Amino acid sequence: MKIICSQEQLQLAVNTVLKAVSSRTTMSILQCILLEAGDGLCKLVGNDLELGIESMLDAQILEKGAIAIDAKMFAEIVRKLPNQDVTLSMSNRDENHILTITCGKSEFNIPGQPAEEFVPLPAIVRNQPLRIPQGELKEMIRQTIFSIAIEETRPALTGELLEVKQGNFHLVSIDGYRASFRKLPMSREFEETSCIIPGKTLNEIKNILSNEEDDMVALYFTGKHVVFELNGSVVVSRLLQGEFPKYENIFTSDYSTKIHVNRKELLMGIERAALVARESKKNPIKVSIQDTGMVISSNTELGNAHEEIDIQLEGNPLEIAFNPKYMIDALKVMEDESIVLQFNGSVNPCIIHQEEGDLCKYLILPIRLN
Amino acid sequence: MKIICSQEQLQLAVNTVLKAVSSRTTMSILQCILLEAGDGLCKLVGNDLELGIESMLDAQILEKGAIAIDAKMFAEIVRKLPNQDVTLSMSNRDENHILTITCGKSEFNIPGQPAEEFVPLPAIVRNQPLRIPQGELKEMIRQTIFSIAIEETRPALTGELLEVKQGNFHLVSIDGYRASFRKLPMSREFEETSCIIPGKTLNEIKNILSNEEDDMVALYFTGKHVVFELNGSVVVSRLLQGEFPKYENIFTSDYSTKIHVNRKELLMGIERAALVARESKKNPIKVSIQDTGMVISSNTELGNAHEEIDIQLEGNPLEIAFNPKYMIDALKVMEDESIVLQFNGSVNPCIIHQEEGDLCKYLILPIRLN
Repeated sequence: MKIICSQEQLQLAVNTVLKAVSSRTTMSILQCILLEAGDGLCKLVGNDLELGIESMLDAQILEKGAIAIDAKMFAEIVRKLPNQDVTLSMSNRDENHILTITCGKSEFNIPGQPAEEFVPLPAIVRNQPLRIPQGELKEMIRQTIFSIAIEETRPALTGELLEVKQGNFHLVSIDGYRASFRKLPMSREFEETSCIIPGKTLNEIKNILSNEEDDMVALYFTGKHVVFELNGSVVVSRLLQGEFPKYENIFTSDYSTKIHVNRKELLMGIERAALVARESKKNPIKVSIQDTGMVISSNTELGNAHEEIDIQLEGNPLEIAFNPKYMIDALKVMEDESIVLQFNGSVNPCIIHQEEGDLCKYLILPIRLN
Repeated sequence: MKIICSQEQLQLAVNTVLKAVSSRTTMSILQCILLEAGDGLCKLVGNDLELGIESMLDAQILEKGAIAIDAKMFAEIVRKLPNQDVTLSMSNRDENHILTITCGKSEFNIPGQPAEEFVPLPAIVRNQPLRIPQGELKEMIRQTIFSIAIEETRPALTGELLEVKQGNFHLVSIDGYRASFRKLPMSREFEETSCIIPGKTLNEIKNILSNEEDDMVALYFTGKHVVFELNGSVVVSRLLQGEFPKYENIFTSDYSTKIHVNRKELLMGIERAALVARESKKNPIKVSIQDTGMVISSNTELGNAHEEIDIQLEGNPLEIAFNPKYMIDALKVMEDESIVLQFNGSVNPCIIHQEEGDLCKYLILPIRLN
């Protein structure tokens, strides 16, 4: 094998596939990335068996071949090379699988492993893709990923429900205490479908997606995998099996109390009140909603906090309590200046949505006070 | 006690004194900062018994008084308050020592401790100060602090020698394997003196010093303490007792091998060669100096690296080996484009200095190869 490419292009490709290399495995082949120079095409591949990423490399191929090389070491070397042409070569007859990296006056010889031992990405039959702007998908993930379940007692909840339904594209996460819903109206028709994507996959995809509205990502669905194609890279992820909770009915539009409030003021007030509640995460903040305004308070052995917030109230006054972190997480990812909170008494969930538009909705269970 | 000040000024003062609050103590009074409103003067004080910082606060004093308040909690609250006027008050008759913080529509009541329990800063008789530009002192610390000793077997080496000698101001650090020397010619005469300042003090001072050449810092010396006065703050530090090694003679000007080299090229080459040496810090890099150039190489079970660097050689060719970290640390903090390395055979130290000027000098012991 012998290829020549620019240090910049190589670094970009390595950093992309690195996101699919496991850092916690003890199997040395899973710590590797595959470097493969084929017929006019050169690619890098990372695969932790749950998530796989393949990235094309714009390279001059002088001799075909392939090798698996320790990902962390290779990435560190590539990052520190000068911004010049890099030559990657390996004697195809050499049974020691030594990769030689030369760039300017630097030369490295790094022992690798035979390419055959690398676990290939699953072969996927690609049907019609769903295309959406990368910036939109990135924003949708950012606005919902925080409420996936951490504990694995119900594996399906450690991922997000992806749904194509009635001309809309949905992402939904539910951790048992709260739910996040984000919608994107689709410009073209696409067959209705749904699947559960692991949270890890979405977190990694988010970091690869560009912010540009014009860059598109193509999604392919099979029963067991989802494929993302973007920027010369292919991301293949296993899907989570199991039942995702029905979420449509939990976002009720009924309310006994409804308030209109400035999002940033509410966020800052809750963040401050949460400071004296920090010692134990079990400490709730209390919310008192009156005609005259909203009072957020917390009272622990660390001290007490009292925050007054201007609101517009429709319906009944209310006393209710929340885990402040859940409120903060939702209020932080919203973009709107003015938002709406709806309540149905002190033991039913609070629903947060936009003042105008219905692209994102959040549900948070209250904490019952004695 | 009752004072009114701006949130911005308060945050600045809190963040400054916070650097002298211990995070590892179990004595709750040492986790506090003192807030004191006196005759027309308001100040905050932090004191971990080794390092103390006092910061003036520009405030309107409505009622005098003092309280010790948990530093971390107070700093977090102040940081999250809106950028408006903050009122800090405490009933002087209240024996519970509750500090009330109000700002806009926020109110906090935080239990504190009696001011009398706070350990005051040592009283220092201030003689003639030594004044130097803050930016210069900051740079001097940055260029020498990395080679203080970490282990406390010889306490004096965990600090830096500060010296006024022959019209120059010196900072010197020695950890047993390497030494760093930085000089500043003084514009005014000052009595010759020397003391050993704890590394922690210098690290904290570095973060308070401004980059502006025009801002001055005043230093006062007593037998047991050093005082830094800057930007409305006073930093008092204990000095380290003990003998600091004589360093003048180790920076010999004799050499059997001398090279002139581009600093960045050498740094990048060593950093790359160090990548395959990383597994164990004991792995040295080998340096081969010949008429034709310099070769840096390392060879471990992770692979091997070979770097060629252009040099100008005076004297004999040489084979020598180093801990790459020591070389990297010194080369990183120097600013010069071209530098000089001097050697006296493969078992004596290497001395690194500027091509032009003698403001900074570094000494590094080699590793003996079998």
